[in-house]
Amino acid sequence: MSILVAGTVALDSLETPFGKAENVLGGSATYFAISASFFAPVNLVAIVGNDFPEEHISLLKRHGVNIKGLEIVNGKTFRWKGRYGYDMDNAQTIYTQLNVCKKFSPKIPAEYQRSDVLFLANIDPDVQAHVINQVERPRLIACDTMNYWIENKRKALLRTLKKVDMFLLNEAEARQLTGEPNLLKAGKALLSFGPKKTIIKKGEHGVLFFSRNSLFSAPAYLLDTINDPTGAGDSFAGGLMGYLRKSGHFSSDSEIRKGIIYGSVLASYAVEDFSVRRLTGISYSDVQRRYHDYRRLTRY
Amino acid sequence: MSILVAGTVALDSLETPFGKAENVLGGSATYFAISASFFAPVNLVAIVGNDFPEEHISLLKRHGVNIKGLEIVNGKTFRWKGRYGYDMDNAQTIYTQLNVCKKFSPKIPAEYQRSDVLFLANIDPDVQAHVINQVERPRLIACDTMNYWIENKRKALLRTLKKVDMFLLNEAEARQLTGEPNLLKAGKALLSFGPKKTIIKKGEHGVLFFSRNSLFSAPAYLLDTINDPTGAGDSFAGGLMGYLRKSGHFSSDSEIRKGIIYGSVLASYAVEDFSVRRLTGISYSDVQRRYHDYRRLTRY
Repeated sequence: MSILVAGTVALDSLETPFGKAENVLGGSATYFAISASFFAPVNLVAIVGNDFPEEHISLLKRHGVNIKGLEIVNGKTFRWKGRYGYDMDNAQTIYTQLNVCKKFSPKIPAEYQRSDVLFLANIDPDVQAHVINQVERPRLIACDTMNYWIENKRKALLRTLKKVDMFLLNEAEARQLTGEPNLLKAGKALLSFGPKKTIIKKGEHGVLFFSRNSLFSAPAYLLDTINDPTGAGDSFAGGLMGYLRKSGHFSSDSEIRKGIIYGSVLASYAVEDFSVRRLTGISYSDVQRRYHDYRRLTRY
Repeated sequence: MSILVAGTVALDSLETPFGKAENVLGGSATYFAISASFFAPVNLVAIVGNDFPEEHISLLKRHGVNIKGLEIVNGKTFRWKGRYGYDMDNAQTIYTQLNVCKKFSPKIPAEYQRSDVLFLANIDPDVQAHVINQVERPRLIACDTMNYWIENKRKALLRTLKKVDMFLLNEAEARQLTGEPNLLKAGKALLSFGPKKTIIKKGEHGVLFFSRNSLFSAPAYLLDTINDPTGAGDSFAGGLMGYLRKSGHFSSDSEIRKGIIYGSVLASYAVEDFSVRRLTGISYSDVQRRYHDYRRLTRY
């Protein structure tokens, strides 16, 4: 049984204080799938145009990502250009070209319909619900979102959240959705929307995990090189869901905590280089090594 | 054997989104001494004017703080007024009236001269050195500083750091002193200035601890009420030094890590109310209880 992810596969252009990259492989489903692939097979659902380079498809396949659900249609692939200053927690969007993503209505292949874990990356909450309706109930449904949907499709988002076990979002989004500046209060408010578990991502400051009877705070792994923060949140989710799929204990508090550390490890690799370069250059033993470094960094 | 602190005892006026306070008890030595007093006797060295309310002196005494070194001179006590927005990590200074602090030249009482721990709170680095020269070598000398001294007395600060075992400063100060925006690199650079141990305080995002062969990252305790962040850093230092004095293992990596958690606990109490109100309303068993809550918040 696999992990199913529905999200974007994109071509990103990026500028950070440490370099540039043009039309490189990006997208929420890409980062998630590669990160999760260290732990379990991943089934991907996304859409790209016929300009999408063949080499990226080969790369996904090499990582054990099933791309039967990657729809290739006439037109241009989703493109995003962003710029980061020294405050790497906030990207300035230069442009967003939805292109073929405008017509994205995911059709879940028959072989994907029984999955243990479903991750709905940051896409239209109505599309997220449409995916949930096409699959047998997975053991864990998790979703992400973004400020655009909170602002423009709040009702649809709240409907989708009722069907979700775990909700991941960043701290600005948590404040925006709940109207609560204090993150402890915001986390509790998010649980009242339906998900039994919520994770607030704080970028370089780590993550907070909330459930009805548990609260967990994990700092981020400490790095001396951060070249491109794009994809950190989706890599985090990939590491977390991957670990949970591997462990098989989807609602164990202690396994979720460990999964959060694995998620942080994958996110830390993602940001060390542009696009998925670093993520695709590491092995499972690198992941394990950094997990143990992380333990040394945090234990007392 | 006691803990010796040299710093300021002040009257603060504060405005935060959650309230106001006028001419309340403040100052680095005050927050430090009360926090450390939960673990060990504290000897305080500071200066106040003859306008300093008798009730504050009684309060310090009630907390077992030896005030033989509190000089009371003609004139007005040091006063500071600050305002905080929702970003509680940065105060806007409305005024600083040094008053009697201008003539502060600490004379260490004979009974203070043999102390296990010396904490030099944020005062002129030449005055910090003057204190070090008046005492028998303590087992642990720690110091704090601020942007003003980094900018205006950099050489004196670097001289003082050569005599110090542990250096505590906030993240903006760490970046300013080292010229290094990345905190991992900044922490390593700070060790090259002399102190064998450095702690970078990140406010609501916790602390980083650096030594030659260890690196520790601790998130802050999570609170739903933060009324006044003034004194958090000094309360942190008080909890840390207090715990180390009690444990007696001043250079044990695992004891320093535990001490950092106790420091975070004291800081978390400090910010829950204005001035030292909350800190003076808790008992040692409250400190222990929150330490255990903190473990539940962070363990995996």
